Amino acid sequence: MRILVQKFGGTSVADLECQKRVREKVLAALNHGYKVVVVLSARAGETNRLLALAEEWSKTPDLAERDSLVSIGEQVSITLFAMLLKDAGVKARSVLAFQIPLVTGNEYGEARIQSINSDWLHAELEKYEVLVVAGFQGITDDGKITTLGRGGSDTSAVALAAVLHAEQCEIYTDVDGVYTTDPRVCSQARKMRTIAYDEMLEMSSMGAKVLHIRSVEFAKKYKVPVHVRSTFTDDPGTVVTQEDSSMEAVLVSGIAYDRDQARVTMRGVPDQPGVAAAIFGPLSEGGVLVDMIVQNTSRDGITDMTFTVSRKDLAKTLEIMQKVSDGINAREVIHDTNVAKVSAIGVGMRNHSGVAARAFAALQKENINIMMISTSEIKIGILIEEKYVELAVRILHEAFGLDWDMGD
Amino acid sequence: MRILVQKFGGTSVADLECQKRVREKVLAALNHGYKVVVVLSARAGETNRLLALAEEWSKTPDLAERDSLVSIGEQVSITLFAMLLKDAGVKARSVLAFQIPLVTGNEYGEARIQSINSDWLHAELEKYEVLVVAGFQGITDDGKITTLGRGGSDTSAVALAAVLHAEQCEIYTDVDGVYTTDPRVCSQARKMRTIAYDEMLEMSSMGAKVLHIRSVEFAKKYKVPVHVRSTFTDDPGTVVTQEDSSMEAVLVSGIAYDRDQARVTMRGVPDQPGVAAAIFGPLSEGGVLVDMIVQNTSRDGITDMTFTVSRKDLAKTLEIMQKVSDGINAREVIHDTNVAKVSAIGVGMRNHSGVAARAFAALQKENINIMMISTSEIKIGILIEEKYVELAVRILHEAFGLDWDMGD
Repeated sequence: MRILVQKFGGTSVADLECQKRVREKVLAALNHGYKVVVVLSARAGETNRLLALAEEWSKTPDLAERDSLVSIGEQVSITLFAMLLKDAGVKARSVLAFQIPLVTGNEYGEARIQSINSDWLHAELEKYEVLVVAGFQGITDDGKITTLGRGGSDTSAVALAAVLHAEQCEIYTDVDGVYTTDPRVCSQARKMRTIAYDEMLEMSSMGAKVLHIRSVEFAKKYKVPVHVRSTFTDDPGTVVTQEDSSMEAVLVSGIAYDRDQARVTMRGVPDQPGVAAAIFGPLSEGGVLVDMIVQNTSRDGITDMTFTVSRKDLAKTLEIMQKVSDGINAREVIHDTNVAKVSAIGVGMRNHSGVAARAFAALQKENINIMMISTSEIKIGILIEEKYVELAVRILHEAFGLDWDMGD
Repeated sequence: MRILVQKFGGTSVADLECQKRVREKVLAALNHGYKVVVVLSARAGETNRLLALAEEWSKTPDLAERDSLVSIGEQVSITLFAMLLKDAGVKARSVLAFQIPLVTGNEYGEARIQSINSDWLHAELEKYEVLVVAGFQGITDDGKITTLGRGGSDTSAVALAAVLHAEQCEIYTDVDGVYTTDPRVCSQARKMRTIAYDEMLEMSSMGAKVLHIRSVEFAKKYKVPVHVRSTFTDDPGTVVTQEDSSMEAVLVSGIAYDRDQARVTMRGVPDQPGVAAAIFGPLSEGGVLVDMIVQNTSRDGITDMTFTVSRKDLAKTLEIMQKVSDGINAREVIHDTNVAKVSAIGVGMRNHSGVAARAFAALQKENINIMMISTSEIKIGILIEEKYVELAVRILHEAFGLDWDMGD
């Protein structure tokens, strides 16, 4: 049995006309001999409408009840779409999470998938040509409805593709693929034919919001090829897959940027064992994700500690840091929101030195000051003044040979 | 454990203000020491909105998919109401049919309840003060969502009260009880304190649309006392219960009427064995419910057969009857929609003769022509010209001592 998973987002299923366009994609897959598992999101605006209803009813809505409430958005999408398929003579049925079951933990609002009964799905695929599965939702061991968090339908689709050993998981969206960088910033941006999971993970977390990051982690773990493509054309998009030798030939695959950065510095910190834990422990407990971290070289037993957080977490971060500062007798806490991060990403840089140096040289040639640097095996992240973001993206895009005129 | 079931309809849960009023009723029951099972309908207009959506998507929507779609109206009501209860410090949770499970057959759109897992409900009632259960919905053996048909939430509530051995099933509605007849037609109508199940069944089927008829059948079968009362007052309403000796003292409990009647006569029917089956068999197969039936005395081996059906079924009935008439060589089929039925109902008439005679005499005194008569143990139904309905109701109400000034 050849199985294809196709996932369509909220704008793709918003109304009858949209759903008819989606039906064409499904019929085409059937014509290619596939059994198809269609995963749908709630119709555009529906989840927000339901969340607003919960807020109207309660300032602090019970999370389990809210999950049960918002999960119905997907139920509307799948039942309507199953009707459309049947009208076209297709043997199809809608599938809710509890029917499979698709079991999650009880982290309401951001539940994690624990297991999917693939035997049940395979048995249903014997009976039906198409299963129309509700994305975004799960069910706990004791039968309560959960949701997987924003963008969770991507994760549903990839997880289903994994347990069903589907040939591919197609993610239909309103962009036509993954680009070497943001085309709005850099006219030289090119659509990639393929991208490695690790590169996509770095792209996602940097704000290239094509795929939900957890879905990429899932795809990587279970080696599911994910094809990101447009609902509105038949052109191939970008396939996210395992890295292969041809990828390594390319040093850097893409340039990402992220404006959602705030820099916090604690100055005059006594440089003694345990001080880093004293700072970052409370932040972690407070649910603040820290991105870049730099510790200055110590002078006279005193150092500075600088890190970046998401701007929405800045107020909470400063509150926590003030307490920590008082506790460890640091001198002061200062901050700056006038910053942004640009990153060069590529599995190819693993085997090559000098990538960082090339990036720094390119930026310095344009007098862009480098405020912080963080590196991983496949990524170099550079914090700069926010006003230079677009320029820095274009400079790095050219410096690493990603511009159109330089090939592939 | 003292258990009370409280059911609230669509107008009672329509918006936040309404639901706060409902919460007061639930809090009052908690203060009386009950564990409470609240059964809710979809918010007013919601089920119709969802049905319209299904119609927009498909001219002949798949029934299983449509049931899954329309069932979400109740899911919205119960999750929001559970939030409200929790905000008031009440330990509560919402409950969907699949979670219990409340199992039905697969007659989508009008499914019948087969079993309810009361062990699960009792265990949840140990953990929670209030369970907020979705009315109207069920689940098949193989996990597909069903609905119980219009007014099905009443049936859900009574069935839950039955399996939980609840002290009472309160049905909150926008009327304050069951009346001896329609107060809009007869100013002398009085609210009954009690009414027997059998009387209520006759009242329901005659168009006194306070309770869904299947819920009354359920209540009778399992001896569940049903208290019909108003969401908008604290006054006691009408308790539907087993008949007791005090009821028998009253000859007639109520007068009902039904304008939804069409009379069909097949004239010149050969009076031979099997002719009734030849006529009513095809109607039954065609899904037509026949109400009153009269066969005239045969003359020269020829007779007339007259019966009534719901007006919406008239066209189908005439189509079927024309075929039957051709088959058995009857003379002609005629019909009349200018008719209505008035009925006197009371368990007391079982032990008394002369009730029919008193009704006929009262009508004839006012020159109201009696077109057909049907009697059961506790009911006399009389077909008359439609224009006399209101007058006939008032005459019978007075004739059987139901007017205010004659005491109760």
